[in-house]
Amino acid sequence: MSRYLTGREVRDACREGQWTMPTCGLAPGFAQANLVILPADWAFDFLLFCQRNPQPCPLLEVTSPGSWTPSLTTPTADLRTDLPGYRVWKAGELVEEPADIRHLWREDFVSFLIGCSFTFEHALLAAGLSVRHVELGCNVPMYRTNMPCQSAGQFSGPLVVSMRPFKPADAIRAVQVSAAFPGSHGPPVHLGDPAQIGIADLSRPDYGDAVPLRAGEIPVFWACGVTPQAALQQARPPLAITHRPGCMFLTDLPG
Amino acid sequence: MSRYLTGREVRDACREGQWTMPTCGLAPGFAQANLVILPADWAFDFLLFCQRNPQPCPLLEVTSPGSWTPSLTTPTADLRTDLPGYRVWKAGELVEEPADIRHLWREDFVSFLIGCSFTFEHALLAAGLSVRHVELGCNVPMYRTNMPCQSAGQFSGPLVVSMRPFKPADAIRAVQVSAAFPGSHGPPVHLGDPAQIGIADLSRPDYGDAVPLRAGEIPVFWACGVTPQAALQQARPPLAITHRPGCMFLTDLPG
Repeated sequence: MSRYLTGREVRDACREGQWTMPTCGLAPGFAQANLVILPADWAFDFLLFCQRNPQPCPLLEVTSPGSWTPSLTTPTADLRTDLPGYRVWKAGELVEEPADIRHLWREDFVSFLIGCSFTFEHALLAAGLSVRHVELGCNVPMYRTNMPCQSAGQFSGPLVVSMRPFKPADAIRAVQVSAAFPGSHGPPVHLGDPAQIGIADLSRPDYGDAVPLRAGEIPVFWACGVTPQAALQQARPPLAITHRPGCMFLTDLPG
Repeated sequence: MSRYLTGREVRDACREGQWTMPTCGLAPGFAQANLVILPADWAFDFLLFCQRNPQPCPLLEVTSPGSWTPSLTTPTADLRTDLPGYRVWKAGELVEEPADIRHLWREDFVSFLIGCSFTFEHALLAAGLSVRHVELGCNVPMYRTNMPCQSAGQFSGPLVVSMRPFKPADAIRAVQVSAAFPGSHGPPVHLGDPAQIGIADLSRPDYGDAVPLRAGEIPVFWACGVTPQAALQQARPPLAITHRPGCMFLTDLPG
């Protein structure tokens, strides 16, 4: 490929069924987003959950009920077709992983686009930092912590974090770089001793893949977009639709 | 008075009926907030309006339906009694200005606390800048602009701005100081020519008091917490309760 893809080109490839893989590393410079779709009668509580937990749930856009177009950030998109894959949840259980959701669409659906750390990883790499799971070609390790989110209506649950190891001087730089991306979880929530936030064993992440710490490195933990999915599984709404893990929505927002 | 009041002391004085005046200049170091109370069936649209318009409507906290306690930011407060005064609106018309709203409380009320520029004015003064309307002892001048807010459900309307005149070097400093307060409208939205944002005559503000520009000064415009009130008057919900102008809620948040 002679140049990077744009956000729109990734969306078009998804819409045509030509891209069904994770989106990490695609379209640098375009913000990526987690997707949560809920019926309108669950939307106020979930919006409140995001408002009260902005670091794990930074809202990039919330659509009006029934609209599949995020007209403020990505007006040419169709949220029913423009992701590499979807997950359908009934009462908190995964029931289907369709390639598009046109056949499931309802007039009362509200879509939430929530920032993703794939966005600031480009900036970490651009700042000359090495991101371990990118280097190893695996998924980022993610952990449930003992830090509760602020609950809202039926939504509650633990903060889920992603972890990237750095030498202390690089960790300091990573704090500064990621802090400039409040729409992608912003600065870390913790660094150093995993036990202080209730993580017993770094080699056994709750989601994603374990990565090794090398000599002199400390683990650095960021709030993670899996947090709202954990809250969703706990709240068990009758119906919810999300992106498939790692298969994010590419916005037109700079990121 | 030998020292400044705290946020809680101001709230207690309001609760006891001992303070019924505007709160500008009170309790420096504590964030002040606009209050909007709506029935739950109007709350999703208004929350969405705030989410889509974060500069005029920076949310400090949104209570759960029926709760008069902003437990995340100010857990000892009672929103029914702890402001100097309230306004009650029916279908967009002002019908009452009670001293407290205990007699009006409903189990479906949702309260929105929205950041206020009184908070960053302390920081402007602390940075050695002179704030004209503070210096003159009058209200800040506010103007309806030709910049539409992003609409959400039944809520729409123009961005309302407040204006403070500064010499250019001080305007540059004021941008930096206020940018550090995203919960209090953040940096300005415009500076210089008022006509560019649809303001015909600075000497005739739509709300508040006119203040003079002196030689070499330019007007600097910030997004203003009157914006959601304008949207509220346009949407005409059957019932809404707000603070009385200038009579803000004192939070326990640093500001």
